Amino acid sequence: MFRHTKHLQFEAKPEKPDALYAMKLQELIGGAWGEMTVTMQYLFQGWNCRIEGKYKDMIMDIATEEIGHVEMLATMVARLLEGAPDDVTAKAVKDPAVAAVVGGMNPQHAIVGGGGALPADSVGTPWNGKYIVASGNLMADFRANVAAEAQGRLQTARLYNMTDDPGVRAMLKFNLARDTVHQNQWLAAIEQLQEDGLEGPVAPSALFDEENQEHANTLWGLSDGEQAHEGRWASGPAPDGMHEFHYLENPAPLGGPASAPPPSGHLYATHDGDMGEGSAKGPDAAPNKTMGDKIKDTFS
Amino acid sequence: MFRHTKHLQFEAKPEKPDALYAMKLQELIGGAWGEMTVTMQYLFQGWNCRIEGKYKDMIMDIATEEIGHVEMLATMVARLLEGAPDDVTAKAVKDPAVAAVVGGMNPQHAIVGGGGALPADSVGTPWNGKYIVASGNLMADFRANVAAEAQGRLQTARLYNMTDDPGVRAMLKFNLARDTVHQNQWLAAIEQLQEDGLEGPVAPSALFDEENQEHANTLWGLSDGEQAHEGRWASGPAPDGMHEFHYLENPAPLGGPASAPPPSGHLYATHDGDMGEGSAKGPDAAPNKTMGDKIKDTFS
Amino acid sequence: MFRHTKHLQFEAKPEKPDALYAMKLQELIGGAWGEMTVTMQYLFQGWNCRIEGKYKDMIMDIATEEIGHVEMLATMVARLLEGAPDDVTAKAVKDPAVAAVVGGMNPQHAIVGGGGALPADSVGTPWNGKYIVASGNLMADFRANVAAEAQGRLQTARLYNMTDDPGVRAMLKFNLARDTVHQNQWLAAIEQLQEDGLEGPVAPSALFDEENQEHANTLWGLSDGEQAHEGRWASGPAPDGMHEFHYLENPAPLGGPASAPPPSGHLYATHDGDMGEGSAKGPDAAPNKTMGDKIKDTFS
Amino acid sequence: MFRHTKHLQFEAKPEKPDALYAMKLQELIGGAWGEMTVTMQYLFQGWNCRIEGKYKDMIMDIATEEIGHVEMLATMVARLLEGAPDDVTAKAVKDPAVAAVVGGMNPQHAIVGGGGALPADSVGTPWNGKYIVASGNLMADFRANVAAEAQGRLQTARLYNMTDDPGVRAMLKFNLARDTVHQNQWLAAIEQLQEDGLEGPVAPSALFDEENQEHANTLWGLSDGEQAHEGRWASGPAPDGMHEFHYLENPAPLGGPASAPPPSGHLYATHDGDMGEGSAKGPDAAPNKTMGDKIKDTFS
Amino acid sequence: MFRHTKHLQFEAKPEKPDALYAMKLQELIGGAWGEMTVTMQYLFQGWNCRIEGKYKDMIMDIATEEIGHVEMLATMVARLLEGAPDDVTAKAVKDPAVAAVVGGMNPQHAIVGGGGALPADSVGTPWNGKYIVASGNLMADFRANVAAEAQGRLQTARLYNMTDDPGVRAMLKFNLARDTVHQNQWLAAIEQLQEDGLEGPVAPSALFDEENQEHANTLWGLSDGEQAHEGRWASGPAPDGMHEFHYLENPAPLGGPASAPPPSGHLYATHDGDMGEGSAKGPDAAPNKTMGDKIKDTFS
Amino acid sequence: MFRHTKHLQFEAKPEKPDALYAMKLQELIGGAWGEMTVTMQYLFQGWNCRIEGKYKDMIMDIATEEIGHVEMLATMVARLLEGAPDDVTAKAVKDPAVAAVVGGMNPQHAIVGGGGALPADSVGTPWNGKYIVASGNLMADFRANVAAEAQGRLQTARLYNMTDDPGVRAMLKFNLARDTVHQNQWLAAIEQLQEDGLEGPVAPSALFDEENQEHANTLWGLSDGEQAHEGRWASGPAPDGMHEFHYLENPAPLGGPASAPPPSGHLYATHDGDMGEGSAKGPDAAPNKTMGDKIKDTFS
Repeated sequence: MFRHTKHLQFEAKPEKPDALYAMKLQELIGGAWGEMTVTMQYLFQGWNCRIEGKYKDMIMDIATEEIGHVEMLATMVARLLEGAPDDVTAKAVKDPAVAAVVGGMNPQHAIVGGGGALPADSVGTPWNGKYIVASGNLMADFRANVAAEAQGRLQTARLYNMTDDPGVRAMLKFNLARDTVHQNQWLAAIEQLQEDGLEGPVAPSALFDEENQEHANTLWGLSDGEQAHEGRWASGPAPDGMHEFHYLENPAPLGGPASAPPPSGHLYATHDGDMGEGSAKGPDAAPNKTMGDKIKDTFS
Repeated sequence: MFRHTKHLQFEAKPEKPDALYAMKLQELIGGAWGEMTVTMQYLFQGWNCRIEGKYKDMIMDIATEEIGHVEMLATMVARLLEGAPDDVTAKAVKDPAVAAVVGGMNPQHAIVGGGGALPADSVGTPWNGKYIVASGNLMADFRANVAAEAQGRLQTARLYNMTDDPGVRAMLKFNLARDTVHQNQWLAAIEQLQEDGLEGPVAPSALFDEENQEHANTLWGLSDGEQAHEGRWASGPAPDGMHEFHYLENPAPLGGPASAPPPSGHLYATHDGDMGEGSAKGPDAAPNKTMGDKIKDTFS
Repeated sequence: MFRHTKHLQFEAKPEKPDALYAMKLQELIGGAWGEMTVTMQYLFQGWNCRIEGKYKDMIMDIATEEIGHVEMLATMVARLLEGAPDDVTAKAVKDPAVAAVVGGMNPQHAIVGGGGALPADSVGTPWNGKYIVASGNLMADFRANVAAEAQGRLQTARLYNMTDDPGVRAMLKFNLARDTVHQNQWLAAIEQLQEDGLEGPVAPSALFDEENQEHANTLWGLSDGEQAHEGRWASGPAPDGMHEFHYLENPAPLGGPASAPPPSGHLYATHDGDMGEGSAKGPDAAPNKTMGDKIKDTFS
Repeated sequence: MFRHTKHLQFEAKPEKPDALYAMKLQELIGGAWGEMTVTMQYLFQGWNCRIEGKYKDMIMDIATEEIGHVEMLATMVARLLEGAPDDVTAKAVKDPAVAAVVGGMNPQHAIVGGGGALPADSVGTPWNGKYIVASGNLMADFRANVAAEAQGRLQTARLYNMTDDPGVRAMLKFNLARDTVHQNQWLAAIEQLQEDGLEGPVAPSALFDEENQEHANTLWGLSDGEQAHEGRWASGPAPDGMHEFHYLENPAPLGGPASAPPPSGHLYATHDGDMGEGSAKGPDAAPNKTMGDKIKDTFS
Repeated sequence: MFRHTKHLQFEAKPEKPDALYAMKLQELIGGAWGEMTVTMQYLFQGWNCRIEGKYKDMIMDIATEEIGHVEMLATMVARLLEGAPDDVTAKAVKDPAVAAVVGGMNPQHAIVGGGGALPADSVGTPWNGKYIVASGNLMADFRANVAAEAQGRLQTARLYNMTDDPGVRAMLKFNLARDTVHQNQWLAAIEQLQEDGLEGPVAPSALFDEENQEHANTLWGLSDGEQAHEGRWASGPAPDGMHEFHYLENPAPLGGPASAPPPSGHLYATHDGDMGEGSAKGPDAAPNKTMGDKIKDTFS
Repeated sequence: MFRHTKHLQFEAKPEKPDALYAMKLQELIGGAWGEMTVTMQYLFQGWNCRIEGKYKDMIMDIATEEIGHVEMLATMVARLLEGAPDDVTAKAVKDPAVAAVVGGMNPQHAIVGGGGALPADSVGTPWNGKYIVASGNLMADFRANVAAEAQGRLQTARLYNMTDDPGVRAMLKFNLARDTVHQNQWLAAIEQLQEDGLEGPVAPSALFDEENQEHANTLWGLSDGEQAHEGRWASGPAPDGMHEFHYLENPAPLGGPASAPPPSGHLYATHDGDMGEGSAKGPDAAPNKTMGDKIKDTFS
């Protein structure tokens, strides 16, 4: 169960409105790597966590903080939209800078949101549940969390340079700091999982006895760039301490030709009538063939 | 530019058809963490790579391999669908195991795909471009790639246990091995980026002078689980070697109350008429207030 | 800012697992009218609320409660999935009832969620941000909130009859009660808005002086059902107290013929060359016509 | 079955083209609350209506009218797009107002639609079937219809202020009037349902004997705003005439701690090995634990 | 403007309910190639048609018919769902055939639709506006219409074999016939466009003087299948009567190496610091390089 | 299996950057009719092809080429984005042309893609798997392929006129030529299928003996446009050589009234209590009726 205080985790006061920047800032709310994503990702991971104790408690701490980040950003967007142009274009546009705003702002900020934030990204695409993962495997999920914080911090840094409003920058600096600490925390948690003997670096850590170990070491050279073999990924020990990298130059395929089996007659797939061993034959199974003949007669 | 050989990278021959399993296997083709995702993610990363040489060449090698993985899985699905029930339900269902197949198989495998694979996941949701990221920052992207390979290997491992078909298992073992090596390779690439002095562990590695360093260390205790402070993420040095973790118990918010500014009159947002300092007043700015009085008269 | 206690608002303990029911219950988590929807809808409405005081405080109370409802349902789904079939189909299926479960359960519950809930509905469609509205106009939004609670309660009632598990039913009875009180509260809030003179029953309450009042009263009879004029909506005073309903039998259209203007030549729209008054003429503006002649020559 | 006349229900003639406004107007065609939504919502409600007579006939009348509204708006958009800039940017842009148009117009209006309307909203998101509901319960559906008309009228009012074109305004005034009468008609239909004894105000009206009545009255105070208890929703009789509101200050959770059950070994969820009573044990059930030990050996 | 008669274009009476078949039949309502698609595609094409007269009139005739097809299918689905299992699974399942139905039916048919049709396909994916095209170029659009009718007829034929209900089959035979005639009509319209000299077979028919004619004839042999050159597409005259096909065996790429330009410093893309000619240099432009050095110091 | 050369199929070098045009060009990458669509459509068709030999080999040749087209366009977009405005708006905007760019460019090109292409269209909607079809029936699929090439060429032609950059135009001329030859090749393949007796012009070519032939000839006149009967589609022989067109003026519906059957009581659909013959009666089956009486008492 959750509780709420109306005080924001950190201040969200722009010095002046900026409707074009409000549109861009939506990326941090409802983008694939925005705060709605980390909120929902961590909440579902916490609820699906199978170990009571420090992992689950930490996940829920961070998840709960992230709801408050959506709140800060939504508040900021509403304040950036104050007095946004919602009038006849020709009346609103006085100079090129205003033209950029009038042409570029998200029309749904006025028409749909009435001056408030939307659960969408900077091009108006709505947030959706496929952005998140909560697999139950903490190694796999913490890898995804590091990625989310890294992309999130990167996008915040880009947005930081698109404004010089001291109020917006103050909040983004707080967000940058939180993205830094959260990135560090998920990296620390990845180490912790290994120290606790719960997971190895490669998820899932279970080794399949029959796993094709000869294929677990090789970089297949399938593009003609000449330097792929120069990196750490092409020779020497792998990070999991169990494999040794090799580079395969110009490798041959291991499988036979790709092909699809003969279709059932009910599917009306185009086929030349040789239905292959084991398939049902007769008029019902091969309507196209029968029809093909009829058509040949008709059209020739 | 690409070239194609009709030989598969690895064999994809099931011993017998299994339409229900074909539906499940779609997760590895068109799921959020399936092969279409890694194909497109690595291709766009390669095309957007700003350093010529070993990084780009390696990305393109792996990207090109992944197209062939979609091909292997699509071929496998078509073969698993051979002779799938496409008839009247009552005719097809003889026993409970068939009932599970008839009820559970993806109807679009017959109706739409005509016995072939679909660019969709195991519940039929189509693959979409928001599943991938190619940010230009290799550290952030390689973090995402590790996550993708980890989730991919995890899902493959789960699917491995849902079949006992030796042909399917043989191919999945190959896939597991490739997911292992690719996970290792992205992890190695993360080390390489740091060895080459291109990025630090926290992306992006730029430090904002004004970044709120006091907020870059702390875990805010916002959930009442009692063990969150016991992990490596709550005390001691952070993985980036630049920060020292601290745990904040029962922290107070730093910001003022959340609130949205007074709305423009053209938005018809509900407001009590006190438009706040600096807002336009008068009938145009506050239609609801004026209207509110009129309504009060009408309804009282 | 938010805080979390690990205790659930209400108990979520099924007597026994039921993977098929878990799939259905997802509708209440990530369906268009599920708890993620009301959570996000009320949060964004609260953040976008332009009146400080009782309206905003009430919205935030209910919004915060709804996050806890998602938590209850996600916990319930994980418990219903305990021991769900994740094996070879033929091994798992013993009798028809198991067949229904094996065929019908959401494969992503195992493959993607690892036995946990997903941010998706009962057919696996992910939740998305277009399900919610926060317009800034409280009358319009409270109308949407009543609708959401009504559909939510209706779906909960339907799901109540699809299980006889006493633990599930106990939780659903709590949910039904909360949907009842919330429905009542949004209805009360609609009355309150009018009592406070903030909005009338028709949103937005602003009257456009030039609004076509003669078209604000009539039901156009455009379908040949003969009883449409018998309801309260076809005669007598309208609920807003300002209009009187009328039924128009067999009404004639008021506008001229629909037509699209002549296209720009750069669009290559098919056109017969008479570009209409005011359009640019010449080879650049009418490439198809020019081309049409050329084609005529070529093909005749 | 339907029939069509090429005459529009109301005139749709702009005085002059305005490509930027055409983009905004798309919200009324393909937005979540646009005319495609009410068209499809009412059609499916009519087709799914279980009572022959006045309800169904009225629904089909309005549904049929709404198809014609999409037609009016699509015609208007095509006319607003006449001569829209489809040229090299630098050639087209002469002054700031044109810059706003060239930068802000929907590029798909030229590239995809060839100067015609699209089934999408003002930011280009395509209309989709999740925007509508047709539940079979008329009270729940009419609540949704009132909400749709309210949001629709609100958005139309906002768009009305964004143009001063007399032709566009004339059509929007007609649309505003139709939204008013339809809002009134759904409100009247809600009253009618209760007069006819078919539904109560809370949908569905069935009382579950075992419904938790003590939880059907209370507003849980979970946010620290101090005025939530001052509204009609916190004390006094509820609108359904069956409940009495109460405000719960600082309420304690009623449930136990949230937790997820021990996972199946096949899911490779991270777990500490204590699988809990009733779970299968042994190497198959707990691969991670076994693997954890192996990893510990390997990495320590 | 549209009008409606409550009589269906053709009868839609199943002999008996079949909830599993109802789920499959949804493909014809809300699938990518279902009746909602052709309805909306033809309506938008008609509204966007730039030639008054026979083309536009024919498009509107067929578009209007298609609305009625959605109605027939929605009615059929509701009737197929009569008495569908909506109870506790174990109670409902008596034998394998019922198990297939209970496991396989769309749970939203009960939970969301209340026994009525949904605007979704056979796996529950909602219909969306990207399924349709109305480009203004009639040749391009009629090509899309033939494709839609062909896929639609194919899917109807597949569904025809999945039932033996005489009532369903009677309606599907009508639909098959309509798909046949509409396919023929769009093919005839393609001929008509050419006879009228409005378009050639290749859309758009405009020839770009500078078009690379040497690249408008060749099939690039990029896959090692050996028979691609045997078809009509590899030699001889092309259908447009203007080109002669050639097969290019093992063609060399015509362009230089793919590469992305040096990034702006504000983007924090990973780069090795050599920003290339014309790029800004200095600390602002290359934060990563500067940071890279700092990191190197820190971590080495 | 695939291989890659880093050389582009054709050169992709703009003379100068143009961020606004880069946004528009995304339509050809990730639009519904863009290169990702034809890539995936042809790949899945090739993998699902049931005839070995010339058809499959040709499909794979073209499919493999299309991957390289995505590569060319992605490279072009990255180069067009070089030095794109990523700064504070007021600093960047100097004149109207820049205002159009700053307001109009896709903000995700900077924030998400870091100066690289996105798998999305010109309004930022992500590419998705529903854009493609691979049905197994080659006639139906080749019809779809012609449509895709026609729409693709049309969109390329429109984009050609929106730039005067000689480098961009050179590449687009190559693309136009490839769209021409591919359109011709699919048209030739349609002829080939008929020559080979595999399919007739109407897909699927199977004739259902019981197909309603009297309904396979007629154009139903359902719109009042007066010229629909003047085209080739209304009289004379149909293109399949098997039918003769007729025009039906003012046709009467063939079916009875549309209606939905009485609902199950568990669905809480609104109903007047007469459940119809064969339906279960009693309190469980008709909760609303029972409740209706109770409500009537309460509210009257």
